[in-house]
Amino acid sequence: MLYLVGLGLSDETDITVKGLEVVKKASRVYLEAYTSVLLVDQSVLESYYGRSIMIADREMVESNSEEILRSAQDEDVAFLVVGDPFGATTHTDLVLRARELSIPVRTVPNASILSGIGACGLQLYNFGQTVSMVFFTDAWKPSSFYDRIKENRSIGLHTLVLVDIKVKEPSLENMARGRKIYEPPRYMTVGQCAAQMLEIEDQRQEAVYSRNSLAIGAARVGGKTEKFVAGTLEELCSADEELGPPLHSLVLLGSRTHELERDFAHQFALDKDRWNKLWKTEYGKQ
Amino acid sequence: MLYLVGLGLSDETDITVKGLEVVKKASRVYLEAYTSVLLVDQSVLESYYGRSIMIADREMVESNSEEILRSAQDEDVAFLVVGDPFGATTHTDLVLRARELSIPVRTVPNASILSGIGACGLQLYNFGQTVSMVFFTDAWKPSSFYDRIKENRSIGLHTLVLVDIKVKEPSLENMARGRKIYEPPRYMTVGQCAAQMLEIEDQRQEAVYSRNSLAIGAARVGGKTEKFVAGTLEELCSADEELGPPLHSLVLLGSRTHELERDFAHQFALDKDRWNKLWKTEYGKQ
Repeated sequence: MLYLVGLGLSDETDITVKGLEVVKKASRVYLEAYTSVLLVDQSVLESYYGRSIMIADREMVESNSEEILRSAQDEDVAFLVVGDPFGATTHTDLVLRARELSIPVRTVPNASILSGIGACGLQLYNFGQTVSMVFFTDAWKPSSFYDRIKENRSIGLHTLVLVDIKVKEPSLENMARGRKIYEPPRYMTVGQCAAQMLEIEDQRQEAVYSRNSLAIGAARVGGKTEKFVAGTLEELCSADEELGPPLHSLVLLGSRTHELERDFAHQFALDKDRWNKLWKTEYGKQ
Repeated sequence: MLYLVGLGLSDETDITVKGLEVVKKASRVYLEAYTSVLLVDQSVLESYYGRSIMIADREMVESNSEEILRSAQDEDVAFLVVGDPFGATTHTDLVLRARELSIPVRTVPNASILSGIGACGLQLYNFGQTVSMVFFTDAWKPSSFYDRIKENRSIGLHTLVLVDIKVKEPSLENMARGRKIYEPPRYMTVGQCAAQMLEIEDQRQEAVYSRNSLAIGAARVGGKTEKFVAGTLEELCSADEELGPPLHSLVLLGSRTHELERDFAHQFALDKDRWNKLWKTEYGKQ
């Protein structure tokens, strides 16, 4: 049996009791460690589970899944995923490959950022599609997120923007030379995300949002040091210090807001007067 | 401290280790039991937690929250919620009332149907806003869900339809007479949901979807007996037997589908030839 076990969002105690039982009994335990990360190290998990864990990086999951699935017809393999197992496309793909090999699959769900973000006070019912933001380079500034946000905002919905993490990625130079030397991990901040959003708005000029659009920056959602900061996109460009360490994510508000959302999010506002003023003019319309 | 503890989707072992520690230590433990239910009884939870649990019905949460929040400034109160604590508006409201009383609040996230539904193989990134379907009566057939689905489908997105549950609701007659006598619990099925969707399409005739629109019926998501059935809305009107007992939910597909979604969902199709044929003509376009 292949078990896909969600680990939740923050530390070693966010695993479910059911998930922990699977981990303790499995023949092999893998940790998928490139689409997201916990706020604690691998060693903390290993000591808590009483098991050694093999790190499954992108290379292993995408090109060497036979190793993960080896003999899972007859023994139990636990594949641990930060958040919920179905948060990323790559896990669906692993399940499909298991199915081709007649390996039974069971999933142990857990909290995902897609629902955990509800802690910021915005109603999950009012979210449209989720988008991802990658680190821009001089030559590569993909802006398909802008079209998706445009769609969401055209019907008044909030957009959750998941920000890039780079864990064990080869630098372009090393990749070109075929060397497996990796860059240090990088985690995009809310400030970088907001700045890239404004850069694309400046470029495309379709008025999908502006410097004054309201948004909420989130850090370490689900953890003890969870932190939210609410403000305009411009304000969020320089709020990284208040948010603190990774992981970050950002929600751009839609206009279809409920007064309960206003009352809840207000406490997180960097500038409460400005927040209220902008809210009155542009939000709560539908 | 008020702790909002998510219980996940299925049974007593879906609580997180962190959540279980909170429950064991709290002075009082409430279970919110009207927006959703687990697949096991209260007595199973009580024996597993080693604690007695007070049921918090709608009346208590919405009109008598002082009792829940009593002395939570000085002691720990655990408020258990099926799924994730922020899945329903009513919990946000409880947090706001706690804040007014200067009661600190902490949330223990868990799996929600909003992410758990990913197990059907549709990518969570391709979902628009979530809608709710209530039991129609002869006099009351609210159709705002139809407008929301129209918005989602206009931009190619899937729609998760959460279906009604009626737990400890007074009958209209008893309510009118002020008697606190309750109807037996009722859980909407995928078949009832699909039929109500088609009834509104017949009434509104805006071609938001049709009898041939593809959808996936889901039952007991996250549980050991989890079951998915894929087909047209018309086929799903009579697939309740295959889906089995509650809880159910339904996903109406949007046209912006990925081939990975096709490959994954195909296995659940009631009529694989029809599924493939309809997929080719109307889906995977964007």
